[in-house]
Amino acid sequence: MTERIAVFPGSFDPLTNGHLDIIQRASQMFDRLIVAVATNTGKKPLFSQAERETMITETVTDLSNVSVMAISGLTIDFLHEHNAHFIVRGLRNEQDFNFERDIANMNHMMATDIESVFLLAKPENAQISSSILKEIVHFNGDVSGFVPAVVWKQLQIKLGSEQ
Amino acid sequence: MTERIAVFPGSFDPLTNGHLDIIQRASQMFDRLIVAVATNTGKKPLFSQAERETMITETVTDLSNVSVMAISGLTIDFLHEHNAHFIVRGLRNEQDFNFERDIANMNHMMATDIESVFLLAKPENAQISSSILKEIVHFNGDVSGFVPAVVWKQLQIKLGSEQ
Amino acid sequence: MTERIAVFPGSFDPLTNGHLDIIQRASQMFDRLIVAVATNTGKKPLFSQAERETMITETVTDLSNVSVMAISGLTIDFLHEHNAHFIVRGLRNEQDFNFERDIANMNHMMATDIESVFLLAKPENAQISSSILKEIVHFNGDVSGFVPAVVWKQLQIKLGSEQ
Amino acid sequence: MTERIAVFPGSFDPLTNGHLDIIQRASQMFDRLIVAVATNTGKKPLFSQAERETMITETVTDLSNVSVMAISGLTIDFLHEHNAHFIVRGLRNEQDFNFERDIANMNHMMATDIESVFLLAKPENAQISSSILKEIVHFNGDVSGFVPAVVWKQLQIKLGSEQ
Amino acid sequence: MTERIAVFPGSFDPLTNGHLDIIQRASQMFDRLIVAVATNTGKKPLFSQAERETMITETVTDLSNVSVMAISGLTIDFLHEHNAHFIVRGLRNEQDFNFERDIANMNHMMATDIESVFLLAKPENAQISSSILKEIVHFNGDVSGFVPAVVWKQLQIKLGSEQ
Amino acid sequence: MTERIAVFPGSFDPLTNGHLDIIQRASQMFDRLIVAVATNTGKKPLFSQAERETMITETVTDLSNVSVMAISGLTIDFLHEHNAHFIVRGLRNEQDFNFERDIANMNHMMATDIESVFLLAKPENAQISSSILKEIVHFNGDVSGFVPAVVWKQLQIKLGSEQ
Repeated sequence: MTERIAVFPGSFDPLTNGHLDIIQRASQMFDRLIVAVATNTGKKPLFSQAERETMITETVTDLSNVSVMAISGLTIDFLHEHNAHFIVRGLRNEQDFNFERDIANMNHMMATDIESVFLLAKPENAQISSSILKEIVHFNGDVSGFVPAVVWKQLQIKLGSEQ
Repeated sequence: MTERIAVFPGSFDPLTNGHLDIIQRASQMFDRLIVAVATNTGKKPLFSQAERETMITETVTDLSNVSVMAISGLTIDFLHEHNAHFIVRGLRNEQDFNFERDIANMNHMMATDIESVFLLAKPENAQISSSILKEIVHFNGDVSGFVPAVVWKQLQIKLGSEQ
Repeated sequence: MTERIAVFPGSFDPLTNGHLDIIQRASQMFDRLIVAVATNTGKKPLFSQAERETMITETVTDLSNVSVMAISGLTIDFLHEHNAHFIVRGLRNEQDFNFERDIANMNHMMATDIESVFLLAKPENAQISSSILKEIVHFNGDVSGFVPAVVWKQLQIKLGSEQ
Repeated sequence: MTERIAVFPGSFDPLTNGHLDIIQRASQMFDRLIVAVATNTGKKPLFSQAERETMITETVTDLSNVSVMAISGLTIDFLHEHNAHFIVRGLRNEQDFNFERDIANMNHMMATDIESVFLLAKPENAQISSSILKEIVHFNGDVSGFVPAVVWKQLQIKLGSEQ
Repeated sequence: MTERIAVFPGSFDPLTNGHLDIIQRASQMFDRLIVAVATNTGKKPLFSQAERETMITETVTDLSNVSVMAISGLTIDFLHEHNAHFIVRGLRNEQDFNFERDIANMNHMMATDIESVFLLAKPENAQISSSILKEIVHFNGDVSGFVPAVVWKQLQIKLGSEQ
Repeated sequence: MTERIAVFPGSFDPLTNGHLDIIQRASQMFDRLIVAVATNTGKKPLFSQAERETMITETVTDLSNVSVMAISGLTIDFLHEHNAHFIVRGLRNEQDFNFERDIANMNHMMATDIESVFLLAKPENAQISSSILKEIVHFNGDVSGFVPAVVWKQLQIKLGSEQ
């Protein structure tokens, strides 16, 4: 049987404990999982694409079937290049569901060989979003409970250099 | 690597094209898929559990890694008995999401080794539900476009015997 | 140009001010509007189909292009019989939207010549439902502010005869 | 200043950890809190109203400003009888919000002196509902992690006597 | 009877197959339909208002009772100027419903003679939004299946000139 | 018993009748209520923080237990500084609920002594948002029915100076 390869695309600006949980669980469902770190088309990111890629790589080092890559084009093109057939996404709430449903349906209409697979955020992670975290950090709040240690360290450095 | 076994539990009263689509797609994600036909605790079903099991078995005959079984207890107990770690469910809309989220979280709190995995109903199937179909059939409506051929045949027989 | 005929189907058990508002507004959008009073397949109604039909007829007597009829089969069959091409429904909230979307899509797949048209419940009517009203009346509550006078009178009679 | 009295109405069939959490938090917001145990109009309850009242009374014994009473009429009438001006309700998800919004708006239209106040279920309680718990218990599942000890004991007795 | 005139306002940046479907269906419900192309207050549009107006005009040329105009002020003022009493909007999902409900209620409070009428996006169009399409085009994706031919041609020109 | 102090944080750019209604109702639930006027991190506000603070102060002058203050850091830090234990927020619709749930859960995880309390927007206020109002004012629309008199006066001045 051919290998089942999945891609978990996102901005990860920055990686949260919620993202990490999805990575860990998805890595057990598929033979290989690629975390695809996107450029942020809409807004200026806090961390550069390379910084985000590095932080994730350091965090998932224990997961032998997980790799981290940058992605700059369409997600479906990225999947085709890497022989992946599955897109993994986490769902925290109904707004996520609405948003993800449209993306998944568009992707499927453009590439019928690609399947989107959804995992549910754990209740304790369901309120964590990168954008809320950045707002809290902006006000000197402590978000160490919501992000991996590597990310918290970089957030403090980024924060210090801002002031 | 150990086999990845998933269970797709439901009432399937009756099996719809929406259910069948989820079965087909889930059968490609996992090494084995068990369709678990539940008794209906809340309401009197149209078809008996045995009738539903038979109709599904006849419909999925081409899918070599799919089996059909009756389930009478807790879903998590069923998974443990069959060495399955994944529950598959389809999501048609936000109401489904709300309902499934609670069930999945309860299941995870009772059995942390079990993961719920969600696939998105295709847009053309998103409005199909077994209960709407039964209401249409009750009024002599033609639902042949929404169910597998085997089910449509049985619906007509059931309908004829009612009148 | 051919007449535009619309049907407003429902249980109307009983007619509320919210229903009446939709009837009034829809009667201005179409050349003719038929209020189609359904039998209640799922549950025992408070008022018989004939009682509900009578109460609505008495209430809409001023609206010259509105008629009231009983409906016992599929809505789309009823529309075809009456040369109607539009189904009118009111939307109070997201749950209504979810429910109505599925019905409308099913109807359109079974009869592509039929269009469902939605009006928004006025904010002051958005919390009124026949089922909540019946529960309040059951506890001797005063719902005269939420239903037409004819309905309130019949509710009191029905209530009195229950006790 | 006059005392602020709140009522937390519900079926509590049975009381869950989610209900208990709302009771504890609401008891700190108000001078007095009355837990009002409703008869179940729609469906046959698992526990009688008296049994439910007893279980809650035993569970909240430490909370000196909380009392437990049966309620058989309209909630707003009950509040007026007890000089209470606040209804407390918990919100777990959007479906709760939709449901509670309609009830609260109806109550406010019928009694403008009464205010509904909402607390958010804690994430770890958001998936717990009395109806899911009863279904799990029906299948011999262990729900001891989701209900107070008193309730779990009674559930086991009730369960034993069913078999 | 006086003519029933409806307005379908929007940014249409660019017109999608979903928009076109609503235009076609609404044109059959009303005597006249005006597609009102708004300036985009919030963000820089991809196409100028004049370009969007031209593309729509070319696309709806077969629909004899449809006209296309620019709109720069309040929608309700535009309706009053054109003796229109109906605003037409499409609903794709619950988020649309939430957004449109607020706008419609505001409009009705400011102009009680104006009625908002909602049509449901067809399932196959429900995931199409102008903003997702622009993101796909930005990454050189093919969206020819989601927009009228005239729009796809202009998107390719616009895209070519960007690179 | 110690005083119960609540904080109602927001941008209030500008204060609407919906906000004012929440202030009035919350002032009756708590011993003291502080309206905390936030800087707007994300976007350029129409009114400066000082202007917004002044308009609210003038509007709530009758409410003896309500004070108005600027807030520039984290909401939970502000509450701790003022010995407040309750955050008050209004809910207009499901989108509000989704947004507020995440914020409230984050706040609770960072400060377990702080409780978020939700009041329901009255139906007639549920469609009012500061952002829609600003868009209407931008197009010279009359929003005097949706904001306190002081705010309407300042909106007209601000509007006049823009043109």
